[in-house]
Amino acid sequence: MGFMDEAISEALKSLEAGGIPIGSVLVHNNKVIGRGHNQRIQKESAILHGEMDALENAGRQPAAVYQKSVLYTTLSPCPMCSGAILLYKIPHVVIGENVNYMGDEELLEARGVKVEVLQDERCIEMMNDFIKSNSSLWNEDIGV
Amino acid sequence: MGFMDEAISEALKSLEAGGIPIGSVLVHNNKVIGRGHNQRIQKESAILHGEMDALENAGRQPAAVYQKSVLYTTLSPCPMCSGAILLYKIPHVVIGENVNYMGDEELLEARGVKVEVLQDERCIEMMNDFIKSNSSLWNEDIGV
Repeated sequence: MGFMDEAISEALKSLEAGGIPIGSVLVHNNKVIGRGHNQRIQKESAILHGEMDALENAGRQPAAVYQKSVLYTTLSPCPMCSGAILLYKIPHVVIGENVNYMGDEELLEARGVKVEVLQDERCIEMMNDFIKSNSSLWNEDIGV
Repeated sequence: MGFMDEAISEALKSLEAGGIPIGSVLVHNNKVIGRGHNQRIQKESAILHGEMDALENAGRQPAAVYQKSVLYTTLSPCPMCSGAILLYKIPHVVIGENVNYMGDEELLEARGVKVEVLQDERCIEMMNDFIKSNSSLWNEDIGV
């Protein structure tokens, strides 16, 4: 299973639990060191987006680890998650899609992060379906 | 007690618990709706900076609440916490000091956030003392 597949599987875990289907994995030396998904519903959390949950689940890592890691995430990272990427100087982010939401990709690139967008049809469809039926919850998640 | 005093009292709570002395309060309609402090040591957390902890403890709030709130924090907000401020469009941040660490204040201002820096001597001394005796822990907290 590829790393984007693992991020999608995290997103589906969230969906099955009644949550927002966004998932992420943090990869170091070709191994997943943290995985997570949006926890707004499940933990009533205002800060546990998929990327933040993956970072939290990776635990406290030395700077050198983050600086050689790749973050895979099903959706374009919002300003908060982009900021976390910048804080820890994660050099490379692979994004499932940015059709349903465009995060702070320009800022990431301006600061030297390699940003790859797959426009994966599974990610696009999953998020599109969710937003259609849960627009107010989705708006809450992105501060709208 | 002023709101910066409340943020400092959160920082001191963290210090007493063996943690990093950075504290924050989120204020809406002149009332604290969330308070928190750095939880790197206490919860082995990579994401609970003071500002993030205060946001998390405020719970899920409607966009309209964040957009009329003020965040008080003892230290200049790092890229992650600045990103959270931008995500939720918090319009005004009051910062204890930026002598010991300069966060993403320029980005905040460029995006229309009002940034006030108090250079409060208590905040400067507290952080300076901590960094002197805990430099590797401090570096970990800011991804260095």
